[in-house]
Amino acid sequence: KMLGRVLCAVLFVGALQPLAEASQGHISVVLLGATGDLAKKYLWQGLFQLYMDQVSSGHSFTFHGAALTALEPGQRLMFDVLKDLSCPPDEAPNRCAVLKDQFLKLSQYHQLKTAEDYTALNREIESLLRQEGLEEAGRIFYFSVPPFAYTEIARHINSSCRPPAGAWLRVVLEKPFGHDLQSAQQLAAELTGFFREEEMYRVDHYLGKQAVAHILPFRDQNRQFLDPIWNRHHVERVEIVLKETVDAKGRTSFYEQYGVIRDVLQNHLTEALLFLIMELPANVSRPEEVLQHKLQSFQSLWGLEKNSAVLGQYQAYASQVREELQEAQDYVSTTPTFAGVLIRSDSLRWEGVPFLLTSGKALDERVGYARVLFKNRAYCTQSETLRDAGHSQCKAKQIIFYFGHGALDTPAVLVSRNLFRPVMPKDSWKEAVAQSDLHIFGQPLSDYYVYSPVKERDAYSVLISNIYHGRKDFFITTENLLASWGFWTPLLDSISPQPLRLYPGGVENQHLLDFEMVSGGLAFTLAEPVELLNPSRQMPSDYKAIQSKFRQSPLVSAWPEDLISQLASDMEKTASKSVARSGQFHLALSGGSSPVILFQRLARHHYAFPWKHTHIWLVDERCVPLTDTESNFFSLHSHLLQSVRVPYFNIHPMPVHLNQRLCVEEDRGTELYAKDIMALVANASFDLVLLGVGTDGHTASLFPHSENGLEGAPTVVLTESPVKPHQRMSLSLPLINKARQVFVLVLGKGKHDITTLLSRVGHEPSKWPISGVSPSSGQLVWYVDYEALLG
Amino acid sequence: KMLGRVLCAVLFVGALQPLAEASQGHISVVLLGATGDLAKKYLWQGLFQLYMDQVSSGHSFTFHGAALTALEPGQRLMFDVLKDLSCPPDEAPNRCAVLKDQFLKLSQYHQLKTAEDYTALNREIESLLRQEGLEEAGRIFYFSVPPFAYTEIARHINSSCRPPAGAWLRVVLEKPFGHDLQSAQQLAAELTGFFREEEMYRVDHYLGKQAVAHILPFRDQNRQFLDPIWNRHHVERVEIVLKETVDAKGRTSFYEQYGVIRDVLQNHLTEALLFLIMELPANVSRPEEVLQHKLQSFQSLWGLEKNSAVLGQYQAYASQVREELQEAQDYVSTTPTFAGVLIRSDSLRWEGVPFLLTSGKALDERVGYARVLFKNRAYCTQSETLRDAGHSQCKAKQIIFYFGHGALDTPAVLVSRNLFRPVMPKDSWKEAVAQSDLHIFGQPLSDYYVYSPVKERDAYSVLISNIYHGRKDFFITTENLLASWGFWTPLLDSISPQPLRLYPGGVENQHLLDFEMVSGGLAFTLAEPVELLNPSRQMPSDYKAIQSKFRQSPLVSAWPEDLISQLASDMEKTASKSVARSGQFHLALSGGSSPVILFQRLARHHYAFPWKHTHIWLVDERCVPLTDTESNFFSLHSHLLQSVRVPYFNIHPMPVHLNQRLCVEEDRGTELYAKDIMALVANASFDLVLLGVGTDGHTASLFPHSENGLEGAPTVVLTESPVKPHQRMSLSLPLINKARQVFVLVLGKGKHDITTLLSRVGHEPSKWPISGVSPSSGQLVWYVDYEALLG
Repeated sequence: KMLGRVLCAVLFVGALQPLAEASQGHISVVLLGATGDLAKKYLWQGLFQLYMDQVSSGHSFTFHGAALTALEPGQRLMFDVLKDLSCPPDEAPNRCAVLKDQFLKLSQYHQLKTAEDYTALNREIESLLRQEGLEEAGRIFYFSVPPFAYTEIARHINSSCRPPAGAWLRVVLEKPFGHDLQSAQQLAAELTGFFREEEMYRVDHYLGKQAVAHILPFRDQNRQFLDPIWNRHHVERVEIVLKETVDAKGRTSFYEQYGVIRDVLQNHLTEALLFLIMELPANVSRPEEVLQHKLQSFQSLWGLEKNSAVLGQYQAYASQVREELQEAQDYVSTTPTFAGVLIRSDSLRWEGVPFLLTSGKALDERVGYARVLFKNRAYCTQSETLRDAGHSQCKAKQIIFYFGHGALDTPAVLVSRNLFRPVMPKDSWKEAVAQSDLHIFGQPLSDYYVYSPVKERDAYSVLISNIYHGRKDFFITTENLLASWGFWTPLLDSISPQPLRLYPGGVENQHLLDFEMVSGGLAFTLAEPVELLNPSRQMPSDYKAIQSKFRQSPLVSAWPEDLISQLASDMEKTASKSVARSGQFHLALSGGSSPVILFQRLARHHYAFPWKHTHIWLVDERCVPLTDTESNFFSLHSHLLQSVRVPYFNIHPMPVHLNQRLCVEEDRGTELYAKDIMALVANASFDLVLLGVGTDGHTASLFPHSENGLEGAPTVVLTESPVKPHQRMSLSLPLINKARQVFVLVLGKGKHDITTLLSRVGHEPSKWPISGVSPSSGQLVWYVDYEALLG
Repeated sequence: KMLGRVLCAVLFVGALQPLAEASQGHISVVLLGATGDLAKKYLWQGLFQLYMDQVSSGHSFTFHGAALTALEPGQRLMFDVLKDLSCPPDEAPNRCAVLKDQFLKLSQYHQLKTAEDYTALNREIESLLRQEGLEEAGRIFYFSVPPFAYTEIARHINSSCRPPAGAWLRVVLEKPFGHDLQSAQQLAAELTGFFREEEMYRVDHYLGKQAVAHILPFRDQNRQFLDPIWNRHHVERVEIVLKETVDAKGRTSFYEQYGVIRDVLQNHLTEALLFLIMELPANVSRPEEVLQHKLQSFQSLWGLEKNSAVLGQYQAYASQVREELQEAQDYVSTTPTFAGVLIRSDSLRWEGVPFLLTSGKALDERVGYARVLFKNRAYCTQSETLRDAGHSQCKAKQIIFYFGHGALDTPAVLVSRNLFRPVMPKDSWKEAVAQSDLHIFGQPLSDYYVYSPVKERDAYSVLISNIYHGRKDFFITTENLLASWGFWTPLLDSISPQPLRLYPGGVENQHLLDFEMVSGGLAFTLAEPVELLNPSRQMPSDYKAIQSKFRQSPLVSAWPEDLISQLASDMEKTASKSVARSGQFHLALSGGSSPVILFQRLARHHYAFPWKHTHIWLVDERCVPLTDTESNFFSLHSHLLQSVRVPYFNIHPMPVHLNQRLCVEEDRGTELYAKDIMALVANASFDLVLLGVGTDGHTASLFPHSENGLEGAPTVVLTESPVKPHQRMSLSLPLINKARQVFVLVLGKGKHDITTLLSRVGHEPSKWPISGVSPSSGQLVWYVDYEALLG
């Protein structure tokens, strides 16, 4: 063992000698997991490429492979890999042979198992540098190991292997980075204990794919053409697709825990999407700007809901899992192997443009691309048969970043010829000669300007080069990672009881996995075929909402999402009827958190809602300025009013803030509001009042034992809440009870106790104000979700 | 002459005899212009068809041809036409021969020239009925005469030929019905002096075309499929097209006065569009409901602007006109023979959906259709080559009402098979056998369900039958006519100085007439080719806006439309800069009529305007409730705020209506507004104030010799206007002058005098308040159109 180290050290010295004058300093690269699959397949080759590219850069290098294996067998394993490194076709064979020889001499194997091993490694690096009289530039630690090993290794590096002040440390991490927001946060927190943010390079190898890496430069270099059209007015849709023909066989122990969304959509496809939709920074080569803009685009994305996705599983998957994981015959897997997801943004640029992300295993072809399809805004007066088709403006216009494989079998950038001739960097992209018989997205290849890379480069070698250059925009920052998990986790949580569509795999899938955008979400186009995998068949979510009675009034109960959609539909029906009857619809809405999802649903799914004829009133308000985020009106505005077209005159916030004072008696806000109601609402009977219930039985801002509003005149009152902000304004119970219709929405386990209690008690408004809701000549309907109802 | 009449009378009696028991009464049909082209070609055949269809209906008929020609030659001419009437192929030849014989016997020629002729006709009809003992059911007068003859004939009919009480009168009128709104109003007013609205049947023969006539029944019978998709969320675009191969040769004396818009778009294509976009009445066979809904849909259409259309003229037209109208060689025709027009609606159903109307002469093919193209909402997971294409959801989805000619050469209704199988009335429409090699709108015919009429019927025979049945919904009511002219006239007025694109005609047009939707309007796709017909090359509208000085401040001047577009762009630039600087943009807007087109332009063309960060303030307000149509805020709301997304909190109407009282001093609205301004606008300096100028030199609501607001503190004041409503609220001049930027907009000839005066006078705010506008540290820019500037 000792001998080996001495031998290696000797080799080192010899190799470094000719470069001793290097003024930029020395870089030590440590590859952890040096004999693993990824290292064998890509990483060593990438490091060799780095060496070839940078041998004259002024930096000197050493490469340290490391693993748990003892020195000698490890050394043998590693050098077996290194011997097989290939010279790229565009490299002069002589030069390459010499460089490969040098690379082997600069490479060394280490067993890294114990704390002492790390200390020893550090000592070796230090002594080598001292011997050679080299300045240290930095150290790269590449973690090509399973994530459970991360923390331990990170601790050792942090405590024993940090370079001296003035030199940098870069640790490179491979996914998976958690499997949901919480686990990602935990992992991130652990790593943050050992490394600073700028030291961590999280790899998503898609960012190294040439076509993906070129999205931002393309947008930058073609600003003049894209600026006017890169928006919702011109873009019809964006598709990000990764289709695979292989299935998960042999990898089910990993796959069964992850599934296609975690494996591909949360990372690769999301990253490609962000490059397409982010606001373009002024300078795309400044990593901080790129990262910041990318992060910002998460904020404009609508939250994903259960119906944002369609999911499938290839038929053989279940038996593969049972076999490989030795599960029982009745084991049912709910892991999707196919997903289509609809993502939307409400930025001014992208509002209304569907982003479709799709990936699956066992599909008909292997291909990956990001495709921007533009709206067709032309009318061609000449009939098609009589027209020179070449540059017709009536043909589809699209820009495609072709990741690879598929019909083209090369990374490429395609731009429809009727769009513009793109500016492409001549040193790295060349115009491809069209294969005339090939069709891409419904059009002959000759309809496009087609560019492919001058040198095809493997993603890992691109990334390793970017680690060397410190280009953090090619990696996933912690913030970015958490934002992405924050975006995807609600969908992952909501789909677990979701039925999966079974598909046979390969070309036999035919139309089975085609899907469509319907009422704000996605659905498979074909009705469910004969066979259906539905592990949650027995769950209540598959039933229609339960219709029953609660406190002598109609009760609608369902899982929250179904309940909200039922409530929103019922509200629309009520509104339409009311407008048909009286030309107007007077709707009084409550604050609180439960209505938020209702507001969003109304804003996004109910285009036929007669907003133009709807008057919006508040049931209650907190005594804060309307622009305060605590204000009920503010929340109503953000989640509903901002998105629909209610005339200004029909919006009636409560006047809690008169003369820049909050709920001062003598400003007579309550009288003012009551007066407005009397003036506009016939007989002061609202067409619909939407209420909630507090755990203490309060409703509106009428709290137990309130002095005001529980009885007396139908009016507006000031009340005191037991929780902050204490001062409130509220419709009184008698005013609420004049309504033609009252809907009470109760959501969540936290409301189970009060729901149970209410099912038993009678009319006792001073104890439980909600129990006093009983419209004198109108109708009361309860909307209670299963958790509130059943606990 | 006497002999002829007796003879005819005898013939009559014989023919009517077998039907004498008819209980439904007698109908006299009088065809004026009985020997003209239209009568020869369509009308007599239509009347014969009516007779064949209705011979057993219980009504008896007589047919009276009339013209200016003397009796005997007229008789000969007319019977030459009648002899050639043909029997439809689906009629039993024997029956038809008998009926034709009867029809000839029931037909008679009259010279109708003088008042006496009309009296005589009336007498004849009366005496015939008396002799036969027949009740009179009604009289139809079909005006197949030039429009200049209408009034005279109408007067005679009204004074001499009205049927007795209890019987109806129906007069049938042929287009043209005027050539713009004013002439149509005049013509309508004249006719209204003689006929009641329900007596007039204005023919647009497109309403008799079977495919057009079936649009509403189709929508009605397929409600279940169409209800969810017949809206902006599903419809991509609507095209209404009439292409002709013939040119105007031989008809230029007519055509030169009308052009393609008046000839085809204002009537035929508009009518087809209305059937597609109108709200569907509950009962489509109730003419009143249909007419009312049709009329209503005009109200939601956006006004047409110059850039709503692209216009062309085939190259040979000019010489044809010079030859036929004997014009000089330098005569230039500005009559368009090709037009593409973009129409938009702001109804909730159609907002954002482009309606493209196109027609032209000398094009590549003869075809007419109305086509509804649906959005593609599907993603097809299988690659196209591996997919059974037949019902693919990724293929275009469309519904086409094919008027005739073209590749199909028959009226037809086509529905994409991936949409739905339509319900069609089996007695009148049959499923057509697909010609497999035919392609319609980019798809093989086999991709559609195709239906064609069981019996192909000529439009005139359909219309004559509908006159008989009193189906007024097949005709153009006065209201409908005027609404249509009201809609088209602004475009006709604005395009006269518009350059026309010359096109060679026929298939050589190639891409020359292709056009595209660009920034709210249309433009030809190809840049202007070498040759260009531009009679208005010397007019200032072709120049960029003039930049100069006015009252020592920058002046922008142009034709109104260009001026407004410049002003709107400048406002957006100011807004963006302001938001970049301070995160907000405080904009104070004036009332009055001039800003309305500005507001519309901002709403429709400036998607990038930072509305979310804009605060809207009022420069002045009339003391009326905000919901009053006289309110400045109301107008601002209708034309701008309703369409853009300014947060509720950022909208600041003037508090002229507090405590349900208007501008009462003690309610201190002015103080309140001033307080709001101080609280929100830094230093009370608006980022931009938009002002107008009155003919008396007032600006904001600051009138000459006003006691308030012309000097003193920067505040908000109550003022008195010389015109109603007298009471006003206004920013004071000192407050306006604190603004960072002030734009003054002056439009129209009416402002020429005050503009001239202002160019001479100095700072005299008490005489001319506008002369006191002089921002203390901000910038003032004048936007004055040519008419205001140059008179």
